[in-house]
Amino acid sequence: MQFTSGYGAEPGAWRLPGANLHSYTDMDQFVRYAQAAERGKIQLLFFADTPALDVDLDGQVPHFAIDPLLVMTSIARETERIGLVSTASTTFNEPYNLARQFKALDVISHGRAGWNAVTTSVPAAAANFGRAVPPRAEKYERAHEVVQIVQALWGSWEKDAWVLDVDGKKFADMDKIQPVGLQGRHVASRGPLPIPPSEQGQPVIFQAGGGEYGLELAGRYADGVYANPYTIEDGRAQRQALRDAAERAGRDPDEVKMFAGFMPAIAASRRAALDRRRFLDESVDLRQRVRYLGTMIGLPLGYEQIDEPLTADQLADAVPSPHDPRSARALQVAREGWTLRDVLAHGVIDYHPVVAGTAADVADHMQEWFEAGACDGFSVAIDGYHDGVDAFVDQVVPLLQERGLFHLDYAGTTLRDHLHAREQYGLDPRVTETAAR
Amino acid sequence: MQFTSGYGAEPGAWRLPGANLHSYTDMDQFVRYAQAAERGKIQLLFFADTPALDVDLDGQVPHFAIDPLLVMTSIARETERIGLVSTASTTFNEPYNLARQFKALDVISHGRAGWNAVTTSVPAAAANFGRAVPPRAEKYERAHEVVQIVQALWGSWEKDAWVLDVDGKKFADMDKIQPVGLQGRHVASRGPLPIPPSEQGQPVIFQAGGGEYGLELAGRYADGVYANPYTIEDGRAQRQALRDAAERAGRDPDEVKMFAGFMPAIAASRRAALDRRRFLDESVDLRQRVRYLGTMIGLPLGYEQIDEPLTADQLADAVPSPHDPRSARALQVAREGWTLRDVLAHGVIDYHPVVAGTAADVADHMQEWFEAGACDGFSVAIDGYHDGVDAFVDQVVPLLQERGLFHLDYAGTTLRDHLHAREQYGLDPRVTETAAR
Repeated sequence: MQFTSGYGAEPGAWRLPGANLHSYTDMDQFVRYAQAAERGKIQLLFFADTPALDVDLDGQVPHFAIDPLLVMTSIARETERIGLVSTASTTFNEPYNLARQFKALDVISHGRAGWNAVTTSVPAAAANFGRAVPPRAEKYERAHEVVQIVQALWGSWEKDAWVLDVDGKKFADMDKIQPVGLQGRHVASRGPLPIPPSEQGQPVIFQAGGGEYGLELAGRYADGVYANPYTIEDGRAQRQALRDAAERAGRDPDEVKMFAGFMPAIAASRRAALDRRRFLDESVDLRQRVRYLGTMIGLPLGYEQIDEPLTADQLADAVPSPHDPRSARALQVAREGWTLRDVLAHGVIDYHPVVAGTAADVADHMQEWFEAGACDGFSVAIDGYHDGVDAFVDQVVPLLQERGLFHLDYAGTTLRDHLHAREQYGLDPRVTETAAR
Repeated sequence: MQFTSGYGAEPGAWRLPGANLHSYTDMDQFVRYAQAAERGKIQLLFFADTPALDVDLDGQVPHFAIDPLLVMTSIARETERIGLVSTASTTFNEPYNLARQFKALDVISHGRAGWNAVTTSVPAAAANFGRAVPPRAEKYERAHEVVQIVQALWGSWEKDAWVLDVDGKKFADMDKIQPVGLQGRHVASRGPLPIPPSEQGQPVIFQAGGGEYGLELAGRYADGVYANPYTIEDGRAQRQALRDAAERAGRDPDEVKMFAGFMPAIAASRRAALDRRRFLDESVDLRQRVRYLGTMIGLPLGYEQIDEPLTADQLADAVPSPHDPRSARALQVAREGWTLRDVLAHGVIDYHPVVAGTAADVADHMQEWFEAGACDGFSVAIDGYHDGVDAFVDQVVPLLQERGLFHLDYAGTTLRDHLHAREQYGLDPRVTETAAR
């Protein structure tokens, strides 16, 4: 389940009736949402992040949490099972600092931490570090170095290094705590990191980058990958490419799970769900969206038509654009006769596939994608948290459980348990093999 | 009150009977100590830090917390008043990352965060970032830039920028959220930081560096300074130098408070306190300490004499070394006739002045220093936390309160309230004045 700045995945979520206006800075609120997700046996919470203010706060909320590590620490202390994963940039962080904070979270949470290791391409983020965005090849070269050093630092204590022998006056066994001594072209670190292993050994690596570079990074290091397919075909193709990348890196492709972004709007009826999204759409630029909807279906559309459906003539002329994978669905919804406002309320231009409907509609969509092999799981983006987390947990999860598609309880106590990932103590053999590249 | 890795200020604290062996990674334990300190109305907890493993863990515990920001976040969630201050290096951190995490802690804690902005000189720390320690002048030039940028990022929201106007669809007033755009020789950041002000506006700056460079940094930016005087005279001189530095920077010298490091060992009698310290001394190299004690008082001393006092001949020859300010006290204690083991148990070679005795002995020492103007307050280093925090809070604090030397309750809700520091919203005029230097 994705968590952003505290209100919901939709920019207008903060205005929903009943929402806590101070959710952005209110850790009590984050804890309550996390506890609700844990009640639903959700495997993990995922905090995307970019170190920059990239929206106009006049009308929209920040995209990201005030600080993912500190928010996750707050949640870790008041939950017991749910995994805690966040993005942190390999481009603008030192590997020692990343290794230390994620390992500390892993220890504090008793083995529930994960790191989504991504490069950063946002110029505003680069400017916050007084730099320009590096070329793509250079960013990914650095990313490989950062991930390898971080994993080596995480592995610098063997499983039984922390001996705590009071009579023998031996706190730890320094023979089992090794420096790292990795030197890359961009970053380096000597180590060791002074933190013992967690209950899962070390945090889990996730990835979210696209393209060949992102696939290579994911194939080599990641146990989980965040992807944004818009269609089942797209999801199957992305998943296969990922599995191929894992095989090229000499791994079992089942080790790498792909999570597809997905945004449900859950209500008692499809009409009620669309009305919820129409309220949320008050915070987006609908003039621009109507124009873009026209581009997607090959028609010149104007805002004056927003409360009308497409005419018969327009429908006859409409053709889905090959440049946007969401176009076919947009046209399909329009053909059902909805007004343009309602077509948009279906989320046909959102950044994840949207299902606006009942809990059963949502469960049907997830079942269809999962059974078609379009993903290994979902990264659920709740539109507005204050009631949407409970709706998903209390209405959709039981349906998925009844259908045998979702576990009845956590598989264990650590994030690695939840993901059926191997435990990781000491050095990852993949790191020592490849450190010299 | 200083907090280190979780056991106590003495390296042998983890072995004390009753200590929790897993304190290093046990946030419940940190929370309990913090709650005890808060019961005693202690103004703040201070976490020193160096990003490196700089002790041999075979016999000693790590010097520092697994991660100060994450530990402070854990504590912030389960305390209400106590301030939370940690060191973070200006040498090996990006100002944007520092600004974001300390501001997030400030918001999460409702205005209780402080940052001890220090340069780092430890080669092992530099090596963890793949670098060498920069020359002193360069380190301090960067430190000025980092502090200025961090403060500017903290000030990038005016006090009333977060409007939360649901009907007006206005989340924040972007006219009151300004980019920073500072460009130094070493670091730069555009900003703004996407975090609204805390209840105290922004975190408090502390400093701990020595020498002219450190004094200049403290005089310009700090509201609190950690110092390590060994004598009252030394404390008065350091405090005056600090006040002079503040005046040179155009500030009221009363704005900068100096906290003197101080380590009590509290027991029912002086003998019992010395026995506590003798147990702790089992974890230090007593052979080396006996030799060094000899150097301090001008005598060749050997370990074979450890359970004997100085002879009359030795006492006649003894002269305190002018090279170590602790020498006069060492000789004074030796003249009282203690064995060398007990002379050392008095803490005459410790890194802070030590009082091993009753709560009244401890209170007397603090009163004497405070009334002599040797400090504005103390940074109390508890030798072993598991019983030492309670001993200080329940035995020493009431004596100081009875004597009118310590407050009966917190002065307010924020760290700035506790320190009688001015609130700080928006840009600090000192930053805009000096950013161009």
